[in-house]
Amino acid sequence: MRIIEEIGEMQQQADAWRREGKAIGFAPTMGYLHDGHLALVKAARSRADIVVVSIFVNPTQFSPGEDLERYPRDTGRDLRLLREAGADAVFLPTTAEIYPDGYQTHVEVSRVTTSLCGMSRPGHFRGVATVVTKLFNIVKPHTAVFGEKDFQQLVTIRRMVRDLNMDVEIVGHPIVREADGLAMSSRNVYLTEAQRLTALRLQKSLAAAQALVDTGERRAEVVLKRVKEVLEEGDDLLIDYAQIRHPETLEETVLIEAPALCALAAFVGKTRLIDNRILNVPHKP
Amino acid sequence: MRIIEEIGEMQQQADAWRREGKAIGFAPTMGYLHDGHLALVKAARSRADIVVVSIFVNPTQFSPGEDLERYPRDTGRDLRLLREAGADAVFLPTTAEIYPDGYQTHVEVSRVTTSLCGMSRPGHFRGVATVVTKLFNIVKPHTAVFGEKDFQQLVTIRRMVRDLNMDVEIVGHPIVREADGLAMSSRNVYLTEAQRLTALRLQKSLAAAQALVDTGERRAEVVLKRVKEVLEEGDDLLIDYAQIRHPETLEETVLIEAPALCALAAFVGKTRLIDNRILNVPHKP
Repeated sequence: MRIIEEIGEMQQQADAWRREGKAIGFAPTMGYLHDGHLALVKAARSRADIVVVSIFVNPTQFSPGEDLERYPRDTGRDLRLLREAGADAVFLPTTAEIYPDGYQTHVEVSRVTTSLCGMSRPGHFRGVATVVTKLFNIVKPHTAVFGEKDFQQLVTIRRMVRDLNMDVEIVGHPIVREADGLAMSSRNVYLTEAQRLTALRLQKSLAAAQALVDTGERRAEVVLKRVKEVLEEGDDLLIDYAQIRHPETLEETVLIEAPALCALAAFVGKTRLIDNRILNVPHKP
Repeated sequence: MRIIEEIGEMQQQADAWRREGKAIGFAPTMGYLHDGHLALVKAARSRADIVVVSIFVNPTQFSPGEDLERYPRDTGRDLRLLREAGADAVFLPTTAEIYPDGYQTHVEVSRVTTSLCGMSRPGHFRGVATVVTKLFNIVKPHTAVFGEKDFQQLVTIRRMVRDLNMDVEIVGHPIVREADGLAMSSRNVYLTEAQRLTALRLQKSLAAAQALVDTGERRAEVVLKRVKEVLEEGDDLLIDYAQIRHPETLEETVLIEAPALCALAAFVGKTRLIDNRILNVPHKP
């Protein structure tokens, strides 16, 4: 497994693979890898000849006051896991390599980034869109895989790729969960044992939403009321948002008559967790 | 010469050339070609195996109230000139092909776009950066050639390419002038015979600036005073700006001790013209 720290070297390697007719699959990460990330590597592997993983804790996608400084890092362990998972190369740049002095360019996707996490995390999606643009220009992938836990991120990247005519196939990978149902996240390490139990209510509330739709409820307002009831079964969780939206445009859904995204963000202690589920409408008998 | 109207077809053709090991040179234009554009084609030809020219009047780089509607067009003539100049392909998309329904992504370069034309033309450089990003993703060039008449555009694109790690070599081409010294521009067609004579003062004022520097003057303020005197020799020209700035950062120059950009924009009638010159500092004897 090649470890590449410099942009020019990564681009040359990508060019060489492309000249050999190899398809490049790419999974961008911020490191501190869990099984969710490794599932992305596996998905990239099934679609490409070469798998590149990037590890870069991108400062520009953290809002002021967020956890950039204490974001968990363990590069040694990450590299071991990626070697075991069969990655061909890891792109591991420094912050100065990505944002040198004089840096001043940004990519902004507008409408799909205004709601949900875009409301709570100013500048977050601008940081994501910009760094993903850079990483695509550096790694030159044919295919890139993103987890569906960050559903709005996936929607934003799909929109950006289409709008800017980037010739990269974007693949979304279903959320990978712990045995107890908690969506995997590098931030789960922040949770105490008690908070960990509290956090299970996110997935429980999404299951309750689907159950309500299964019984015939179509009003988003009513479904969200139920979601909030489940989330607020104890006072140890603070809802950031709970919304039902169109899974591509992220426009608000009033009546659930087609698959709709139910997306949540909540604070458990100081830790902000997100989860989501596509609510499916049962076929009429 | 291939004429390609669809994005997917252009990308496939670019991929095919790249697989054959061909270097792609690119000159983006808004059409209504003059010898300045043809010089870009020639420069691309000298650096690449394949030359692609795009013709697209990009609506997003026109500010409100500008001349988008009446911008001159003559595609038949353009194609004939490009055939004669030996272009291999012309990318000629419709506006709907470039900006389909739902379009919402923009590329923004910040500091270098705030002054000069960026002051007078809000949104202009955002439109330029975005469309050039798209065209690079569509045409996939190794090298792209831009005229130095739009000097701030060239600076912006160089900055964007560096910041976003686009693997494209950017080449600036010296201004091509008419026999009388007027910088070539598609907008010169708007000028009456009398206005055409007035417009010559742009280049005359730049020559006066260099002459003053040649005599030992280093104060930008003094040089600009002379520039404005020449421009305002008649009241039939309205200065938009006349400034001396660093040729890469575009920061304001106070003392001209290294090559400095003298950049002008002025209205002659309703027509906005730009011109510029790098002021060179003579070596001390």
